Amino acid sequence: MAGNTFGTVFKVTTWGESHGTAVGATIDGCPPGLELSEKEIQKDMDRRRPGTGGGASPRKEPDKVEILSGTYEGLTTGTPISLLIYNKDAHSKSYNHLKNIFRPGHGDITYLKKYGIRDHRGGGRASARETAARVAAGAVAKKLLGKNGVQVIAYTVALGSIEVKKRALDEITGNRLFCPDTATAALMEEKIDTVRNNKDTLGGIVEILTRGCPAGLGEPVFDKLDAELAKALMSIGAVKGVEIGAGFEAALLTGSQNNDPLTPEGFKSNRSGGILAGISNGDDIVARVAVKPIPSIAMEQETVDLDNKPVKIKIGGRHDISAIPRIIPVCEAMVALTLADHLMRQKAISSF
Amino acid sequence: MAGNTFGTVFKVTTWGESHGTAVGATIDGCPPGLELSEKEIQKDMDRRRPGTGGGASPRKEPDKVEILSGTYEGLTTGTPISLLIYNKDAHSKSYNHLKNIFRPGHGDITYLKKYGIRDHRGGGRASARETAARVAAGAVAKKLLGKNGVQVIAYTVALGSIEVKKRALDEITGNRLFCPDTATAALMEEKIDTVRNNKDTLGGIVEILTRGCPAGLGEPVFDKLDAELAKALMSIGAVKGVEIGAGFEAALLTGSQNNDPLTPEGFKSNRSGGILAGISNGDDIVARVAVKPIPSIAMEQETVDLDNKPVKIKIGGRHDISAIPRIIPVCEAMVALTLADHLMRQKAISSF
Amino acid sequence: MAGNTFGTVFKVTTWGESHGTAVGATIDGCPPGLELSEKEIQKDMDRRRPGTGGGASPRKEPDKVEILSGTYEGLTTGTPISLLIYNKDAHSKSYNHLKNIFRPGHGDITYLKKYGIRDHRGGGRASARETAARVAAGAVAKKLLGKNGVQVIAYTVALGSIEVKKRALDEITGNRLFCPDTATAALMEEKIDTVRNNKDTLGGIVEILTRGCPAGLGEPVFDKLDAELAKALMSIGAVKGVEIGAGFEAALLTGSQNNDPLTPEGFKSNRSGGILAGISNGDDIVARVAVKPIPSIAMEQETVDLDNKPVKIKIGGRHDISAIPRIIPVCEAMVALTLADHLMRQKAISSF
Amino acid sequence: MAGNTFGTVFKVTTWGESHGTAVGATIDGCPPGLELSEKEIQKDMDRRRPGTGGGASPRKEPDKVEILSGTYEGLTTGTPISLLIYNKDAHSKSYNHLKNIFRPGHGDITYLKKYGIRDHRGGGRASARETAARVAAGAVAKKLLGKNGVQVIAYTVALGSIEVKKRALDEITGNRLFCPDTATAALMEEKIDTVRNNKDTLGGIVEILTRGCPAGLGEPVFDKLDAELAKALMSIGAVKGVEIGAGFEAALLTGSQNNDPLTPEGFKSNRSGGILAGISNGDDIVARVAVKPIPSIAMEQETVDLDNKPVKIKIGGRHDISAIPRIIPVCEAMVALTLADHLMRQKAISSF
Repeated sequence: MAGNTFGTVFKVTTWGESHGTAVGATIDGCPPGLELSEKEIQKDMDRRRPGTGGGASPRKEPDKVEILSGTYEGLTTGTPISLLIYNKDAHSKSYNHLKNIFRPGHGDITYLKKYGIRDHRGGGRASARETAARVAAGAVAKKLLGKNGVQVIAYTVALGSIEVKKRALDEITGNRLFCPDTATAALMEEKIDTVRNNKDTLGGIVEILTRGCPAGLGEPVFDKLDAELAKALMSIGAVKGVEIGAGFEAALLTGSQNNDPLTPEGFKSNRSGGILAGISNGDDIVARVAVKPIPSIAMEQETVDLDNKPVKIKIGGRHDISAIPRIIPVCEAMVALTLADHLMRQKAISSF
Repeated sequence: MAGNTFGTVFKVTTWGESHGTAVGATIDGCPPGLELSEKEIQKDMDRRRPGTGGGASPRKEPDKVEILSGTYEGLTTGTPISLLIYNKDAHSKSYNHLKNIFRPGHGDITYLKKYGIRDHRGGGRASARETAARVAAGAVAKKLLGKNGVQVIAYTVALGSIEVKKRALDEITGNRLFCPDTATAALMEEKIDTVRNNKDTLGGIVEILTRGCPAGLGEPVFDKLDAELAKALMSIGAVKGVEIGAGFEAALLTGSQNNDPLTPEGFKSNRSGGILAGISNGDDIVARVAVKPIPSIAMEQETVDLDNKPVKIKIGGRHDISAIPRIIPVCEAMVALTLADHLMRQKAISSF
Repeated sequence: MAGNTFGTVFKVTTWGESHGTAVGATIDGCPPGLELSEKEIQKDMDRRRPGTGGGASPRKEPDKVEILSGTYEGLTTGTPISLLIYNKDAHSKSYNHLKNIFRPGHGDITYLKKYGIRDHRGGGRASARETAARVAAGAVAKKLLGKNGVQVIAYTVALGSIEVKKRALDEITGNRLFCPDTATAALMEEKIDTVRNNKDTLGGIVEILTRGCPAGLGEPVFDKLDAELAKALMSIGAVKGVEIGAGFEAALLTGSQNNDPLTPEGFKSNRSGGILAGISNGDDIVARVAVKPIPSIAMEQETVDLDNKPVKIKIGGRHDISAIPRIIPVCEAMVALTLADHLMRQKAISSF
Repeated sequence: MAGNTFGTVFKVTTWGESHGTAVGATIDGCPPGLELSEKEIQKDMDRRRPGTGGGASPRKEPDKVEILSGTYEGLTTGTPISLLIYNKDAHSKSYNHLKNIFRPGHGDITYLKKYGIRDHRGGGRASARETAARVAAGAVAKKLLGKNGVQVIAYTVALGSIEVKKRALDEITGNRLFCPDTATAALMEEKIDTVRNNKDTLGGIVEILTRGCPAGLGEPVFDKLDAELAKALMSIGAVKGVEIGAGFEAALLTGSQNNDPLTPEGFKSNRSGGILAGISNGDDIVARVAVKPIPSIAMEQETVDLDNKPVKIKIGGRHDISAIPRIIPVCEAMVALTLADHLMRQKAISSF
């Protein structure tokens, strides 16, 4: 059973390769009556677009999204919503020299071992280009959430070893790194320049905050809300770790330190990250992901070719220095898709 | 859509409350012809049982598993395998005083908000007792994996702030904490005693190592192997974070530091944790989880009752000091269930 | 991917072999707050029990159902409901002589070809005994439907070539064949006796009527209500055909004859069987199934053994003459499970 | 949970409205390495196209299919295959007068009751145009089946009350009705003319024959092969009944008449239709569907408008006289999709 569908009630299937004709998503299960336009979806597409952000690649894709079905006179009809984004600026030829080589840190070797065949051009389906379809679908999920008072915001909290000193949400849109600490963002930009000059790349940490989520979302015991968020976020190519609330720090705390006391005014702290026993508790939902450095580096690396012969490789082409900040709308999309699905799952049982 | 089923091809549905009649699991999709006996499953059950391990609770459950269907003359038949474990030592009355109170750090409040009703006795379905069914099903998954040369081993790498100094797999079974560093295990046991005397509890970190996993498992783009492992592990009650390979450390590395070079003899390092682009690469699969301290503490805590009135609570009863080590077979079970499912998913496409 | 789960939101997984320890069902997704007792479920179990009805086998099974989880103080809690029915009167030894022989009209040969192994005792999982679990789960679905004003009633409309002349619903419980025409039922009983004396068996037709179903159930384009009903009913062992409303007769009509005119008072006729474009229209839902004669006949038949050698077979043991009437609660159960699932699916989208 | 996905391992999601921009399908789970071209898919598209066949509508759609993803150098890669068909000849304006009226026999009223909104143009998603996507996806399934020696052929066996007298498969392509009896086909064409002149429409019966299907496909107890075929076929708009093998006739037979005796050379007859206990037995699989007359008739009919006021309606526009023969490739597609899925499901378990 292949794995290109996410969600169970608000269900998204994505398709498309980096250098194929197009990428796209079909949403099955969006409720009827939701206002939806290409223009609104485009806003999120533009945030994810190549060429934006500090460490971003110069590939120029308009990333223009088209709604092919599922709406009528500006409203969703309850039928499947097909979203299409043509690939325009694919330079497939620049990948010809990679046809017989496995790039370190990439899925070249695993795709071949899995399928026995691969579309090597630009990483095929393993390319970050695939996330364009996630962002388009996520924009629809956000509309549904917005109508229900739920808001998802992602931002950079660390780039390499540089961490933010504050989380001023109003500063996020004021810098190219979507960083809630403008002063630190400037240091991060400097770091990117240094690393670019070293022909290297950078990782970091993104935090995703959800406000206004009602209590009761999440389906024990396997589809708990934190479990589903972990899957959603770990399914993004560059992510190597996910934590909720106190996360790995919780391992260092005692029960009396980690428990969030309840008071008539609500929880006194939020080390749970808004989720108890896999179900949202009405507080802010807080998740963080570890983003690995982009594996395409201009520096020379050791690898092997299809015949398992050792070769040296330098990856040119148009690559980002860090998946941050372009990964940020993708993180938002994955959290939004998870919450939209669980909102609908909860509606199925709550109205009896 | 409720969430008590895990997997898509090797599919497990669990049921049962802490203080109900029984807990159990039904496996649908186990291939025929696999040798299976209650005795073998029992081995894993015994490792998870109350009363074992350093910080464990004194609740005495025989946890005797019965196979009610799906086998014939010692072999699986391809039909559903029903596993049943009766609850014997449930002291439901000792929970009567908690009927109207929300325990901090527990799902009491979220279950009520979600379902409008709850079986408060012993935490109901939110109790760790639910994991008995996971371990039983996981033992079947391990049999399938074993037949395919795959082995899953979990062990303690940190208890509170005490970290192991080595990973000697042959030392794991030599101490009650399933710790691959006997000397450190002794320090951990001391720490447990101190914390117990403080009426508090402890968290820690468990690592799960998979050896012998073939390349090619994992289903991009949403059911990537790392995404599914993250969900599987995060679905365990006490887990607040999951990382694969270098995990959160990868955020601090550059691309040249983090990429695993390929050589004719294989990967030179394993910072990917055995997974590239969501597909196993044939190397060891390495995951780690952050385990929060058990929320049931004997110390007095602030909370509210059903009428949102402030109350003080001290949780007596029979509780563990740490989810470690009893969580260890549960972590193994969840990884085994994930891999068994993906092994079968890959078989579906690979034989054409 | 195995197939022992039915439904998507109100989801039932059944397990168990005819001569194994027990059969059972787990319902995941039943809404909380539904009154449920073993006693109520037992009523439907008793209607399906061996030994009841005109042509029924003398196997004596108490078919006592136990609820192992998912309820608290008489109400469902929203967690999985595990239903267990022990097998008591299994005479496995009487099947020993069939171990190496394929019974005509049975799944003996196909189970072996599919799984490479089979539990031959009493037909294993292919036995009609499996339907006990369906009836138990169906009783829960009926409770949910009842609370929403929906009622499902099945009855015999033909036994062999003897057809009912009327559909007097109040006569159904007045005869052992659940026939809405008592006079015809008497003729049917006579026919059963004749056929039994001939060492042969009989087929027939069952109609399933649903009253009170709200408009709007069914999920185009693949999970249309009629499509799902067809699957549900055809999944019953003895069923070889399913029709909705006018059914096969519709093939003979013209559009002007077949269309149901709409009037301010509702539809003027119901040749659609209550379903238009795969969605319930608020009218009665009418389905019919063709039930094949039971393949276990006492008459001598040609067949082959495991070595593909020709052999003669006479099937003794305790067998029904017709699947009617015991199939009737099974038909009701499958329709009820389908409608309960679709009722919940519709709730998921309708409340936004 | 919406219902626009068919299959579990070979999984197809369709989208698109009759008068929207396009219709399409995404196949997730097609094995890699299958030769696939737009040209081949087009062959089946052309058989379903408006304007072909005896009673067909004059709407002119090129129905040109485009493969947007999932193939590389003429081979499938194992990634999702996106198929797109633009709508060219949609005359939406000719539906304006129907905006406020419910057409008898159509889904107009049920779509509105379900979703609270509808795209009335050309029936929206309830239009037979939706089946273009099924046929495109079915063509891919046929390729997979063909590689495994399985062939699916559908043909007309009755139009209204005119039944074929023989099943000469080599005559099927010799007439516009895909009828295996050319002489009878001529009578059917005459009947169509008469009925057209009467401003009425016609139903009929289609048989779908599968040759070369290996034994072992089908997943008891709910996803039996006959159950899944029943769902697949009943999900086609015009179908009101489905039968397998002897079908409804089996209700009239005794066990000794209906059982297919086994001999060393195989089954002596095929009243089972190639399926025993829900699993293919290696024999031909035979299914038949009852096709209702097309509800769009030029004759005046009674109906109501949105305000539940009585109105008269005559449906002009470009409509077929019978869903036969255009439904024939759709029937083939649905059987092919079912078998491709079950072939893969069986591979998942059979290779251990």
